[in-house]
Amino acid sequence: MARPTHREFFAVRTVSQALAGFRPQRRTSVEMVALERAHRRVPATAVRAPHDLPGFARSTVDGFAVRAADTYGASEGLPSYLEITGAVAMGRPPEIAVEAGTAASIPTGAAIPDGADAVVMVEYTQEAMPGTIEVVRPVAPGDGLVRGDEDASAGAELLPAGRPLRAQDLGLLAATGLTEVGVRARPRVAIVSTGDEVVPPSTPEPAFGQVRDATAVALAALVCDAGGEPDVRGIVPDDYDALDHALREAVGSCDVIVVSAGSSVGSRDETAAVVAGLGRPGIWTHGIAVRPGKPTLLADCDGVPVIGLPGNPRSALVVFRLIGMPIVRLVGGATHPVQEPGVRARLDRDVPSSAGRLDVVQVVLRGGVASPLFGASALLTVLTRADGYIIVDEDATGLPSGSDVDVTLYR
Amino acid sequence: MARPTHREFFAVRTVSQALAGFRPQRRTSVEMVALERAHRRVPATAVRAPHDLPGFARSTVDGFAVRAADTYGASEGLPSYLEITGAVAMGRPPEIAVEAGTAASIPTGAAIPDGADAVVMVEYTQEAMPGTIEVVRPVAPGDGLVRGDEDASAGAELLPAGRPLRAQDLGLLAATGLTEVGVRARPRVAIVSTGDEVVPPSTPEPAFGQVRDATAVALAALVCDAGGEPDVRGIVPDDYDALDHALREAVGSCDVIVVSAGSSVGSRDETAAVVAGLGRPGIWTHGIAVRPGKPTLLADCDGVPVIGLPGNPRSALVVFRLIGMPIVRLVGGATHPVQEPGVRARLDRDVPSSAGRLDVVQVVLRGGVASPLFGASALLTVLTRADGYIIVDEDATGLPSGSDVDVTLYR
Repeated sequence: MARPTHREFFAVRTVSQALAGFRPQRRTSVEMVALERAHRRVPATAVRAPHDLPGFARSTVDGFAVRAADTYGASEGLPSYLEITGAVAMGRPPEIAVEAGTAASIPTGAAIPDGADAVVMVEYTQEAMPGTIEVVRPVAPGDGLVRGDEDASAGAELLPAGRPLRAQDLGLLAATGLTEVGVRARPRVAIVSTGDEVVPPSTPEPAFGQVRDATAVALAALVCDAGGEPDVRGIVPDDYDALDHALREAVGSCDVIVVSAGSSVGSRDETAAVVAGLGRPGIWTHGIAVRPGKPTLLADCDGVPVIGLPGNPRSALVVFRLIGMPIVRLVGGATHPVQEPGVRARLDRDVPSSAGRLDVVQVVLRGGVASPLFGASALLTVLTRADGYIIVDEDATGLPSGSDVDVTLYR
Repeated sequence: MARPTHREFFAVRTVSQALAGFRPQRRTSVEMVALERAHRRVPATAVRAPHDLPGFARSTVDGFAVRAADTYGASEGLPSYLEITGAVAMGRPPEIAVEAGTAASIPTGAAIPDGADAVVMVEYTQEAMPGTIEVVRPVAPGDGLVRGDEDASAGAELLPAGRPLRAQDLGLLAATGLTEVGVRARPRVAIVSTGDEVVPPSTPEPAFGQVRDATAVALAALVCDAGGEPDVRGIVPDDYDALDHALREAVGSCDVIVVSAGSSVGSRDETAAVVAGLGRPGIWTHGIAVRPGKPTLLADCDGVPVIGLPGNPRSALVVFRLIGMPIVRLVGGATHPVQEPGVRARLDRDVPSSAGRLDVVQVVLRGGVASPLFGASALLTVLTRADGYIIVDEDATGLPSGSDVDVTLYR
């Protein structure tokens, strides 16, 4: 394939421009999955209740099902006397009805018998004589029970579309008998490494000048966190035809493509040239005002978002968290805001920055104090030593020591 | 088996007493796992660097490897002139050495050739004539490169024991060629449901008075979040012998046992009686000062922690988050504090509470305002509608409307 001879130049975009402006339309298809495998999966449409829940009025206390009117005015000094006409068993239809002047013993969770409209807690009763109880506190209709449609009524929205399923959501689906749920397929994310210096992590003794691929396995973990399914495609040489071939294959079989470009300008230009020829409309930006991570490329190639990451692992991971993970989530149908753990802390050093550029600064946290970790962006241990990071916005020109900052914490 | 005839009474403990005082000694064994499957797994011991990283001095810029001394005093007006004697290729040992008065072109990430001690960025050079560059800015030794041991030196601690592996940690392990890592096995957590009213979620039409098991699938998801492997063992009738049999089986094959007791007092007493006879030292507490969730049981049965949860799903999930997940993490060797997402918000209603009891109050968040969700603890939709929860500590007697509160957010 002929290499495009033109070199394209693109305006550098800010991170917020990228997040707001680069919004791929692609969405994965819908599939049914069993509840046991649905944790954190994303419902494609809102889930509605197929019937009332719990479906019958249930006692919420251990006690006696009564007619509330029979207890009005009851007190320690002047209790109401009720005849016990039976007992409700757990998990069975009540065999008796409660009539005026009578009560049925009932455990927490059992079905309210016909005729009863409240449950008196056992603590507010005593056995006056065998077969008769004294009620020493009045109850109102509805006390001590939940109605048959109190948890949800038939047709009500149980769970919204686009919010990854949480533990309690699975519980609610189980309670309604929905043992499968329609969710977006996990976006398949191709992870392509390039760079003539890069060798597989399993290489026992890299030659002098070679480095093991640190980025792919870390990106795969972040893809999983974003709800995607990583497809690690190995290392492609810094060669136009080889990279073109690898990316064309990925476009045909994946929902998102991530390329960790080589680290040198030449290698990055090569990646950009390949991506530019890959499909329409092509490159959206080749440069984001973020540090580390400026030489990031975003493209839409025939509907497949392509994310070109900087060559060094640390920059690649910082940018993928910031810009790549939201793209994977979007393609996977997740529209709910993502919650990351964070904490407020006090900076113990000045952090320099330039206006117009967003800086991601790794920090160590000790007792409410955030200490920035500096060092060349080639150093991976800056990331592994960090407890979290702070963001210095585009409009700030650094943060002085002593500032209160929001630290996003790694989990 | 004979049912113990004594009923034991236990003091109610606070949540912090439970977290500090009930600390099972059990730890899972160590296993080697491939990096690709090691995300969030817990290293059993600290991981140390087997060799220097990156292993050789590397350029961090595109430019020219030089002797720094050759550039001292260089400026736009008075550049240093250096003879280009070669080029370093990516991923290969440099074929040339840099001598006084010479330079070698070098891309970002390539190995620094012998003789050079700095790299001048290409931006600060220009070609004076073929084979010669002008350097217009001085560099100091070490500029434009990382040393061979700058990321880590052989023997240095790369990752601490007990901190679940993060994406960047996997990247660092890959970079050092450690493609397997020794981690604690995932704790195997038996999930046993009891209750005569409880039927499997797949039951198409529960009989009147029956409810589907909402708790087990939700607990399984929380067990996964805590790094455990759920072993859902189905529904056991509220019967001493059946429950005794089920729990004895679980003690023999699991690291932690979770029982969602039936909802009535009788059913909870039955569970407690079975657990009391299951192993030594036995029940640690049967009652925690938390709402919802008071009838929680904690026991150590021959080294296996047993967590008896309240019968209703909502209370069970609240307590399991608070007390069960930390136990699963502990058994799985995770000692690093867990970070949950949170946000500060303003309460829009009074929240009543009693001193001496910790209250977990579900809230909906809208624009910085937290609205408490009230309702019987039997209602599961209170949990599914919630964005997060607030905790009213034991020493507080409620929170007034308008208070600033910390909301822990569900992910």
